[in-house]
Amino acid sequence: MSAANPDAGVEQGFGYDYPLIIKQLLITPLRQHAQQEIVYRDLQRFTYRQFGQRVHRLGSALGSLGVAQGDVVAVLDWDSNRYLECFFGIPMTGAVLMTVNVRLSAEQILYTLNHARAKAIFCNTDFLPLLAALRPMLPQAKVFVRMRDGDAGGQQDDAFAWDGDYEALLAQGDPAHVFPDFDERMKATTFYTTGTTGKPKGVYYSHRQIVLHTLSGLGTVVTRPDDVYMPITPMFHVHAWGNPFNATVRGLKQVYPGRYSPELLVRLFVTERVTLSHCVPTILQMFLAAAKDVDLRGWRLIIGGSAMPRALAQAALDRGVDVFSGYGMSETGPIATVALVPAQLRDGGEKELAYRCRAGRPVPLCDVRIMDPQMRELPQDGVSTGEVVMRSPWLTQGYLDDPEASRTLWEGGWLHTGDIGTIDEHGFLTITDRIKDVVKTGGEWVSSLQLEDILAEHPSVGEVAVIGVHCERWGERPVAIVVARPGAAEDAAALRAHVMMRVEQGVVSKYAVPERVEFVEVIAKTSVGKLDKKALRARFG
Amino acid sequence: MSAANPDAGVEQGFGYDYPLIIKQLLITPLRQHAQQEIVYRDLQRFTYRQFGQRVHRLGSALGSLGVAQGDVVAVLDWDSNRYLECFFGIPMTGAVLMTVNVRLSAEQILYTLNHARAKAIFCNTDFLPLLAALRPMLPQAKVFVRMRDGDAGGQQDDAFAWDGDYEALLAQGDPAHVFPDFDERMKATTFYTTGTTGKPKGVYYSHRQIVLHTLSGLGTVVTRPDDVYMPITPMFHVHAWGNPFNATVRGLKQVYPGRYSPELLVRLFVTERVTLSHCVPTILQMFLAAAKDVDLRGWRLIIGGSAMPRALAQAALDRGVDVFSGYGMSETGPIATVALVPAQLRDGGEKELAYRCRAGRPVPLCDVRIMDPQMRELPQDGVSTGEVVMRSPWLTQGYLDDPEASRTLWEGGWLHTGDIGTIDEHGFLTITDRIKDVVKTGGEWVSSLQLEDILAEHPSVGEVAVIGVHCERWGERPVAIVVARPGAAEDAAALRAHVMMRVEQGVVSKYAVPERVEFVEVIAKTSVGKLDKKALRARFG
Repeated sequence: MSAANPDAGVEQGFGYDYPLIIKQLLITPLRQHAQQEIVYRDLQRFTYRQFGQRVHRLGSALGSLGVAQGDVVAVLDWDSNRYLECFFGIPMTGAVLMTVNVRLSAEQILYTLNHARAKAIFCNTDFLPLLAALRPMLPQAKVFVRMRDGDAGGQQDDAFAWDGDYEALLAQGDPAHVFPDFDERMKATTFYTTGTTGKPKGVYYSHRQIVLHTLSGLGTVVTRPDDVYMPITPMFHVHAWGNPFNATVRGLKQVYPGRYSPELLVRLFVTERVTLSHCVPTILQMFLAAAKDVDLRGWRLIIGGSAMPRALAQAALDRGVDVFSGYGMSETGPIATVALVPAQLRDGGEKELAYRCRAGRPVPLCDVRIMDPQMRELPQDGVSTGEVVMRSPWLTQGYLDDPEASRTLWEGGWLHTGDIGTIDEHGFLTITDRIKDVVKTGGEWVSSLQLEDILAEHPSVGEVAVIGVHCERWGERPVAIVVARPGAAEDAAALRAHVMMRVEQGVVSKYAVPERVEFVEVIAKTSVGKLDKKALRARFG
Repeated sequence: MSAANPDAGVEQGFGYDYPLIIKQLLITPLRQHAQQEIVYRDLQRFTYRQFGQRVHRLGSALGSLGVAQGDVVAVLDWDSNRYLECFFGIPMTGAVLMTVNVRLSAEQILYTLNHARAKAIFCNTDFLPLLAALRPMLPQAKVFVRMRDGDAGGQQDDAFAWDGDYEALLAQGDPAHVFPDFDERMKATTFYTTGTTGKPKGVYYSHRQIVLHTLSGLGTVVTRPDDVYMPITPMFHVHAWGNPFNATVRGLKQVYPGRYSPELLVRLFVTERVTLSHCVPTILQMFLAAAKDVDLRGWRLIIGGSAMPRALAQAALDRGVDVFSGYGMSETGPIATVALVPAQLRDGGEKELAYRCRAGRPVPLCDVRIMDPQMRELPQDGVSTGEVVMRSPWLTQGYLDDPEASRTLWEGGWLHTGDIGTIDEHGFLTITDRIKDVVKTGGEWVSSLQLEDILAEHPSVGEVAVIGVHCERWGERPVAIVVARPGAAEDAAALRAHVMMRVEQGVVSKYAVPERVEFVEVIAKTSVGKLDKKALRARFG
């Protein structure tokens, strides 16, 4: 601290230079909500005071295990109070929490642990067979800590030669352990994202980023002071979308369901009176079915991961669930937008339903724009379509050890989501496409999904896929692959004329008129039933 | 930007290094609420889009006036859209907004303008006589800009030789002016606080501090997405407690009432359907009287500046006003705590009323503690009394050009509020005293106010004042100055025995038993009717 100088433009002073680090998120809840509960399945309940002590004990235990600032500590666990303790206790020491996606293949998990140079691995014994198989190939991992519920485990478990047991380490740890202050730009967390191609890529978040993501999230009023929170998106998935941090700052009752089972989720929902959750659409579908005799009124539910189908949203609304979308990616912290519908757009009908299913409006400080291929900003008119790019204080600053992919991600100083969308006058973002499903032609983007919808309007079309094929002059040109309806004529000119009519109506750009229409008996599909555009491009490209 | 290095503890990367600067607060509202309104008295209405353009025009105008980064621009105005534009447009250029307290004496205003080295002065013509008188004594002020409503002003106005007229400058300014990025620790605002003694002292806030104060404020959910906001605390008073920044980020309709008149405030409240305000207790009293035929239900009102009397709070509650306290100081940004009463303490009765009148609970990231004179933290038991100290990311880092006072303010790394209080198990802070009204004795603090209350219980006491007098052994000792009731005995031993009884009941410390009891005919009062403890200390100390 140096002397105050009123002439200096940059603030200086005599005061405590308050860093935005994760330990500061615990100040409010531990002092205001010490008796509030954190629930683990139907097994255990902790007060926030106990939780706070366990976080401090964990910090102390990490020191005694030899974990130092900057070391990476990987966690493989289901959603648990333990994981919440790790969300805080690991980064609060200055170490980096690596949240391992336990659904990846063994090979991918091995790759990510080695790539991140994980020094310590905290592992639920459910994953012991995996860990035992990988251990000989993890030369950088020095410390293995066992996590388990109660007295589970057994011979194989004991034979693993653990360096410690999570509960035993905490029991020996110091509940008054002092966490240091440090640079708010220190890395706090890292995890890996898998694209459709290539190796998993590591993203990373600093303390400052997590604190600011949390504050902005509180500002959106997704969490309310009397909520009971239960995640149904795994905690290894972008910090469960950051919600455990928000719930903790608010001092909410939190319910961690362990390994998801529909029956236990529904039971916890009822017994703990859950009011706030988040999940992907397929989990909502599963939950609605499993909870068909349960009163779901008063449940606020954020849907992300993929677009929410309107019918599913309507089904949830019919059950009294206040359901709405959120949007973000592993690279974006993740929250960029939430579809909280403002009063003037709430009509209780189709309009509101549509808004609930959109990506939503950017949260405070988050600058989301749509840009054309030349990175010129496009108007917020609800029609202009461009790539979704963004800036906010909590976006990953790159991919670990991958400068080329990092440069591509941040080309031109904006994070490129790879998504295509529109923004309307109210600031609502709608995702229309992935950029790889877009045909870039004549300096414009033509949505293959929109073009498929237009072609499907024609009575002769049974099924249709649109791909972009290379073209010297226009970059790419759209090609339509069509299965004609039984008995219908295979008339390419009629289909092109139909698209041209839509061009004249201003629905699509003139570049959308397909270069060719290919009639086929059947269109190739992927293993999950989606149009296999890769195969189509290989065949017709 | 340098290459990503996964080994470095400190985050590095390829991304946009997003600074926490005030311009970032405009991203969300201008893109999501462009048609929302900002209302100035019954005179003018602007959309947020227009407001945004005016902010950009102002930035451009400041450049053409020769205002550079680090220059101080002072504003003397009533609460107006102009002031809101200055809240953003001045700091967004990198200049420092000085909000001048127009209620100070001419001498104090002169002192503060010179002390802050104000280069430009934006002045409402209501203050022209003052400014004309001071101008010859403001050698550092180079630029004078006239602010006025409509075609007000006249000969004297024109004779002043203004360097520009606010509206004319904006008309010439560039609505697409580009505001630069810069270090988030650049000073954004400064203003002066007057203590009971000495010269006014300047506090200062950086961009980072204002952004974080705003985010934390959004997180407390004081503002709600559909609010209509009207300040009734002047904008020169610690940025109207920061609320204009919060209201703007939320995209709320905002109503600026100009110079406060009860009749206009009530009229604007009704016609604009105001739902959120803040004021000091005396203004609330005035408003309730002026609005006696008005339906006040649905009005959320934050009371600060001084403690809210329970009777006043009850009177407001009886009218349907959701009234609660906030607490802070010029030095604290200002918001430290707000008395939003959580569900489990809302009984609709006395308990809730008491909580609404307390200072409240710290907002997210704000660490408020009570400490004894040795700076040991005291328990949160609702009884232990100590000095209120705090840390948060938005506290002034000192006083301008006053290292000694800055060091005292931040002694031991905590900001000392000079207030004495308790914190209860729910984290609610209650202010009981100013530290200068406390008797420091035997290493403990004895509240003179509490001791006065105890002595007043005794039937022989008509009026009582307690002061601390110097003592070699105990530091200070309490002395009671008492006016006996007509006909009652002047029995010092009986009064000491009464206090001793309260000591034995655990109500006060044994150090509270008065060293002496002095009986007098009358107790000296200040001009505003308070006990004149300074005079009493001079006489009995």
